Amino acid sequence: KTHIDCITSRRIQKLPGLIDVHVHVREPGATHKEDWSSCTSAALSGGVTLICAMPNTHPPVTDLTSFTLAHEAASRGARCDYALMVGASNVNYEFIHELAPKAAGLKMYLNETFSSLTLEDTNIWLKHLEAWPSHLPVCVHAESRTAAAVLMMAQLASRSVHICHVARREEILLIRAAKAKGMQVTCEVCPHHLFLSSEDKTHLGSKSEVRPRLVSKEDQQALWDNMDIIDCFATDHAPHTLEEKTGKNPPPGFPGLETLLPLLLTAVSQGRLTMEDLENKLHHNPRKIFHLPRQSNTYIEVDMDTVWTIPEKPRFSKSGWTPFAGFKVTGRVQRVVLRGEVAYVDGQVHVNPGFGENVRDSQPLSPKSSPSFPPSFPSVSLAV
Amino acid sequence: KTHIDCITSRRIQKLPGLIDVHVHVREPGATHKEDWSSCTSAALSGGVTLICAMPNTHPPVTDLTSFTLAHEAASRGARCDYALMVGASNVNYEFIHELAPKAAGLKMYLNETFSSLTLEDTNIWLKHLEAWPSHLPVCVHAESRTAAAVLMMAQLASRSVHICHVARREEILLIRAAKAKGMQVTCEVCPHHLFLSSEDKTHLGSKSEVRPRLVSKEDQQALWDNMDIIDCFATDHAPHTLEEKTGKNPPPGFPGLETLLPLLLTAVSQGRLTMEDLENKLHHNPRKIFHLPRQSNTYIEVDMDTVWTIPEKPRFSKSGWTPFAGFKVTGRVQRVVLRGEVAYVDGQVHVNPGFGENVRDSQPLSPKSSPSFPPSFPSVSLAV
Ligand SMILES: [Zn+2]
Ligand SMILES: [Zn+2]
Ligand SMILES: [Zn+2]
Ligand SMILES: [Zn+2]
Ligand SMILES: [Zn+2]
Ligand SMILES: [Zn+2]
Ligand SMILES: [Zn+2]
Ligand SMILES: [Zn+2]
Repeated sequence: KTHIDCITSRRIQKLPGLIDVHVHVREPGATHKEDWSSCTSAALSGGVTLICAMPNTHPPVTDLTSFTLAHEAASRGARCDYALMVGASNVNYEFIHELAPKAAGLKMYLNETFSSLTLEDTNIWLKHLEAWPSHLPVCVHAESRTAAAVLMMAQLASRSVHICHVARREEILLIRAAKAKGMQVTCEVCPHHLFLSSEDKTHLGSKSEVRPRLVSKEDQQALWDNMDIIDCFATDHAPHTLEEKTGKNPPPGFPGLETLLPLLLTAVSQGRLTMEDLENKLHHNPRKIFHLPRQSNTYIEVDMDTVWTIPEKPRFSKSGWTPFAGFKVTGRVQRVVLRGEVAYVDGQVHVNPGFGENVRDSQPLSPKSSPSFPPSFPSVSLAV
Repeated sequence: KTHIDCITSRRIQKLPGLIDVHVHVREPGATHKEDWSSCTSAALSGGVTLICAMPNTHPPVTDLTSFTLAHEAASRGARCDYALMVGASNVNYEFIHELAPKAAGLKMYLNETFSSLTLEDTNIWLKHLEAWPSHLPVCVHAESRTAAAVLMMAQLASRSVHICHVARREEILLIRAAKAKGMQVTCEVCPHHLFLSSEDKTHLGSKSEVRPRLVSKEDQQALWDNMDIIDCFATDHAPHTLEEKTGKNPPPGFPGLETLLPLLLTAVSQGRLTMEDLENKLHHNPRKIFHLPRQSNTYIEVDMDTVWTIPEKPRFSKSGWTPFAGFKVTGRVQRVVLRGEVAYVDGQVHVNPGFGENVRDSQPLSPKSSPSFPPSFPSVSLAV
């Protein structure tokens, strides 16, 4: 607790531990890009105390065997808490829902992306949407008209869906209209779609590959203009090495955990975002939508005033690069307390691999909707 | 009336004049492929007394000027009755609905096809769906997930849509599920998707290009298995010359007016389809869905027993070829009486260009829903 003394001259803001519902940890299968230890170090350094890990690993998490494998890797390596998404495949709709109580949610890939899990047939979507418990999260990679298509299939299944990484005017206006109609839909937006645009392709070159692609300034403005409709901020932290990003066929994806909060705090300092919005979209709404438990004695302390420049290399992510290099930002994470332990302070991670817990281990979800989970799903943005 | 004498030894079935809600007349703009005179001759020879003409002409029918141009061509050349669809563009959603009372309906092209009218942005779809009177027809070219997407936008607009040329298992099962949910959706299926499959690409070669593409045997079987969900049969008569179809970049589309009824009658004779289904899907349902008036003193006489082989060249279409050449079929149109006139008999058209009437001229539609139009839209197939 001595670390706090040296910063008394600065404005320190205490926040709840941040939750990032969209993280690609890359372990098992691609630990040269990232692993549980490096990924969760990056998370803690960004003020994130709980992540939802995506299932497009190698092997992908699509059954009990691969889920167990991923869980073992997480349990050994994680420094912050987590839950594991499972992936919808063309064949697993008959049994994958059995993992619902232990999973963060079900992920459906509905466009071509960095995954072997793409689902083409809307009738397969419907089978998954009907089989997965209707009060538990289904997250979809669904761009442009595909977002409308999956919302239709969710109506047929009388259930909610969560739209990942909304990037376009078309998509956010669709979600606005659907919420206004009382449909059960939530969404997340990534910092790279809020702070980068297609104009940045010039200097990023092949590194700019990401799905959804970097959008036009007009699309970007629509995200800011519809901030009240955005339920969550999420990084879609998708690390690839600099070598991969600058080689042939650069894979899509950016690291994002270490830059998430500084970028958003900068928007706060510019008056483009309120602290209440930030806290709602990075803590309260993710908790409600994903039925995540409270992390006891968990909070972060943020230095609101420090101005710094994002360096070429992230400190903890193995990816070794960031699309935000050179951005001048205001605010940084000073200290992270996770379940009573000082997990991060002054640039150093203080907890070991294995300290992180699977939040579904202590509180598995009920496969049936019950009074212990909010039966009424938010049909309009939770942020007020 | 003497013509009927020579066929007394055959089984003659009287049917109402058939309605084809999906015809590309090609005039104005491409009269080397087809024109109003040749197209409506082909229609009459196929037992069709009323067609809905598609708006992707040159110029496309997207405003009053182009509508008037198309109407003049139709009025000069048509031998059977007709109504004219208007096309949704990226810019005309603020005024095109003013033509609703005089139009067959609004057509929205939502996939890449033989048209300059493709609409990418779902928010533009929504503007059209909201502006067009909700009790009047909107027809969509929407394949696979795009069909789900436009159904979602129709839910947001609280209105019906008619899905053109349903071809895939995925699409017909979507429509079955949507109807079961009480959603206001109707659909049409084309003979070429019922009687040709991707296996026919071998012998058709470049002539096989069509949108939606010829489908697998499994998709085709799903159409037959869900016959109760199909509201209409429609040809999507889309003539191109043999030269164009066998040249570079063959344009998509088949002629279909002259083969529509023989193919379906053959299915009847094989026990795969009932006469009631045929009459519902080619007359009663199109009339209800498109609010088409009764054509007085109009009927066709069909020889149910004649077996014949479809020749290489259609008799009336300028296209000069058919994908069904060589098909052995049972049944043919003997006589067509349109508004009391013998319009076609024994292979000869007996009415002149200009005989055809625009059915919306005598009975323009009300822009507001009123008791004179069925206020309750069929939410399940009208065929019983
Ligand atoms: Zn994604
Ligand atoms: Zn992702
Ligand atoms: Zn709070
Ligand atoms: Zn466990
Ligand atoms: Zn079409
Ligand atoms: Zn067409
Ligand atoms: Zn009848
Ligand atoms: Zn007129």
